[in-house]
Amino acid sequence: MRSKKKPISGVPIHHTFEEENLESIQEEIKNRNLFVIYSFLEFSHPADIADVIETLELEDALFVFRLCDIERKRQIFMNLSDEMQGEFLENLEVNEVQELLKELESDEATYVLSDVDEEKTEEFLRGISHEDSVRIRTQLAYKENTAGRLMNVDFASVKVTDNARRGIISVRKAAKQTEDIYVIFVVDDENRLKGYVKLKDLLIATPETPITELMQPIKSIHYDTDQEEVAKFFKKYDMVSAPVVDENDIILGRITIDDVLHVLEEEATEDIYRMGGVSEEETINSSIWDSIRHRLVWLTINLFIANVTTSVVLLFEDVIQRFVVLASLMPIVAGMGGNTGTQAITVMVRNLATGELNKNNLFPTIRKELMIGLLNGLSLGIIAFTVTIFLKSDFYIAMVMALAMFVTLSVAGFMGALVPIVLKTIKVDPAIASSIFVTAFTDMFGFFCFLGLANYILGNFGK
Amino acid sequence: MRSKKKPISGVPIHHTFEEENLESIQEEIKNRNLFVIYSFLEFSHPADIADVIETLELEDALFVFRLCDIERKRQIFMNLSDEMQGEFLENLEVNEVQELLKELESDEATYVLSDVDEEKTEEFLRGISHEDSVRIRTQLAYKENTAGRLMNVDFASVKVTDNARRGIISVRKAAKQTEDIYVIFVVDDENRLKGYVKLKDLLIATPETPITELMQPIKSIHYDTDQEEVAKFFKKYDMVSAPVVDENDIILGRITIDDVLHVLEEEATEDIYRMGGVSEEETINSSIWDSIRHRLVWLTINLFIANVTTSVVLLFEDVIQRFVVLASLMPIVAGMGGNTGTQAITVMVRNLATGELNKNNLFPTIRKELMIGLLNGLSLGIIAFTVTIFLKSDFYIAMVMALAMFVTLSVAGFMGALVPIVLKTIKVDPAIASSIFVTAFTDMFGFFCFLGLANYILGNFGK
Repeated sequence: MRSKKKPISGVPIHHTFEEENLESIQEEIKNRNLFVIYSFLEFSHPADIADVIETLELEDALFVFRLCDIERKRQIFMNLSDEMQGEFLENLEVNEVQELLKELESDEATYVLSDVDEEKTEEFLRGISHEDSVRIRTQLAYKENTAGRLMNVDFASVKVTDNARRGIISVRKAAKQTEDIYVIFVVDDENRLKGYVKLKDLLIATPETPITELMQPIKSIHYDTDQEEVAKFFKKYDMVSAPVVDENDIILGRITIDDVLHVLEEEATEDIYRMGGVSEEETINSSIWDSIRHRLVWLTINLFIANVTTSVVLLFEDVIQRFVVLASLMPIVAGMGGNTGTQAITVMVRNLATGELNKNNLFPTIRKELMIGLLNGLSLGIIAFTVTIFLKSDFYIAMVMALAMFVTLSVAGFMGALVPIVLKTIKVDPAIASSIFVTAFTDMFGFFCFLGLANYILGNFGK
Repeated sequence: MRSKKKPISGVPIHHTFEEENLESIQEEIKNRNLFVIYSFLEFSHPADIADVIETLELEDALFVFRLCDIERKRQIFMNLSDEMQGEFLENLEVNEVQELLKELESDEATYVLSDVDEEKTEEFLRGISHEDSVRIRTQLAYKENTAGRLMNVDFASVKVTDNARRGIISVRKAAKQTEDIYVIFVVDDENRLKGYVKLKDLLIATPETPITELMQPIKSIHYDTDQEEVAKFFKKYDMVSAPVVDENDIILGRITIDDVLHVLEEEATEDIYRMGGVSEEETINSSIWDSIRHRLVWLTINLFIANVTTSVVLLFEDVIQRFVVLASLMPIVAGMGGNTGTQAITVMVRNLATGELNKNNLFPTIRKELMIGLLNGLSLGIIAFTVTIFLKSDFYIAMVMALAMFVTLSVAGFMGALVPIVLKTIKVDPAIASSIFVTAFTDMFGFFCFLGLANYILGNFGK
């Protein structure tokens, strides 16, 4: 039905929903002011409606949701956060969920059901057509975060033996099933991928032009490919829609760039969170308890490591007792080592994630980081010497500071470059573990180096 | 010309370029083995060719580049890194650059020229048609990193008074200029945006259907919108192609989702780099000197701040001299405060960047972070007490540790949540400055709190 896609006739541009209106619309929803609610639903974009629903109590949220027609429901539902989707699945009637599932595209249904337990999934799938439920079950069998899960099994294709006229007929038929008919895959009789045709080229070709003449080469993605690799693939080859195939090049579905947009953001968030010591499972909507549980683990690990690393300090009890000023300077050296290490980790982890860093430039990059560490160590050694002379007026202490800074920073830069690569090689996520290792090392090394030098220099030359 | 788009006939699938072959192809290029080079160029994807060129000496790189036809040159050039593009612009003949510029789409040309100085730009533009150069100059006048720079000025549009048949004629015409004809903008006689039509709906409609019946509402982007906001817009409204307009809704161009993919990655890298104390201008291809220069600034700022914060330690010289064990414990408290602060900063900065955190959930989120800080402080206080009792067998020192840990972590969590928001409000990038402020604060506060408590408790009860 066409009308489904055009909920409001005569209103070409959506009203932009202003954040300032949020409170008043929340109020009207609470009061069940149907006139205002309907006009809000009619004139707003589904993504804006979802944003408002997200702020409501569950009861109000379901009330608003149930006022919409099924196409609107689909759009709103797919714009809700994972947490809210979960709440809806738990609190809607089974037949409401089934109605919704029928409406979702295959990748959407798979995504939504991936967090639902098996029993519940069976219950939901019982109510929908055998064909649809088989498709969803098949797709749920692919591993999470792989191309098989991301793909949509509806796509436009033409036979390699067709001509442009027959091609357009196939595409018109496909257009009723799927949104994306702009990249049309070319297959042989066994459904093996042969290439692709742009809809654009089909349109401007004469009807008798053979498909082989319009066909262009295409890269494909294996269904077992990790979604991070899928994102790299799209970025590198500048694709809008890519075919997913099995070992025999038989086409199973296609992934479109808008799915990749979400993957890319998810992966970036994951890396940022992990580097900051936060679990990637935490979202802004997580409960306090989930957040605490995840963060506490990481903090506790750090606490134990800190106890080990700082125990180095006690090896030098005597010299600290004689020169208490060392106690105030030693955290500076260790801290600056940590900062230098973090800089190197940041560059390495990010470029490993984006694929900018690979076998071809690995060694030059490590060498470069080593040089940066050495030269930054040298510069900061000199600066630290000057600052310490100025603040403490003690040549030997300033020398200790300068030397410790130089050595610690050089080593920290090198470790910061090396550790992420070693972790990646032994298949540990560098984003999550690099900083723990490097900070433990720079702390211990920084304390040892600074206090060791102090012990030697001040012991021999100090007053 | 059709043939341009189909460089190799009869070879539907690109050979996948294997990284293991890199050395041998580098060798063959060095030896100018034309047979191998041509077959490499013919059977490889432009993105793979660009990757290989990236690893070559400039002379070899230019040699390979010059063997390609102009369409291939365009594809390869747009896949090169910014640094390599810059090298090419400097070392190609002026007429070669002009030939290339003629071939680029408007957004590509604008992107490429944005790093070239004015004089050089004038020289390049002199050789291309007046119409094209005016368009590029106009687009270069938009601010960097805005929608105006990102957009492509070629797009498909139909008049609001047309019908489907006339619509298809317009689209066929547009298809010769631009790749993206799948979202067709509907405009009035003054070129004011009225809505959009999907190519798909045009294709399945009967020829006499008025455009107004196929038209759907559309959201638009003002040309001055920052690219980060553009990315949020695409994510939120799930668009593939969006119109860019001026104040009067007159359409200037369109942005497609593949451009947004690059923006999204760029912005994520920027945030990750800034949080790690690395300038967003640094890339894996930056020279050592650029990297040192950028990182040294940040390290030097940190060194001065560290000198200020750790001077707190000297206020407690006496108690440290009496209990040297404090010198080994105080970095633990300050460090754990830093870790807790970083966790809160990470969540806040990332969610501010993605737009998940906004006015609607600001206060609940700060309150939540405060609670997390308090409860994590409590838990780690207890753990720290246990560990310290076990390691040092001193009840009073363990009490000092537990109390200092509790207070410092609670405050650190709160500061980590608050500072990014304050910075954002006063228009300072929270990714770059949050950690400097919060770490300075948690260090100073951690030292002061721990040593102050030690001074009081051990002074009164210690042995």
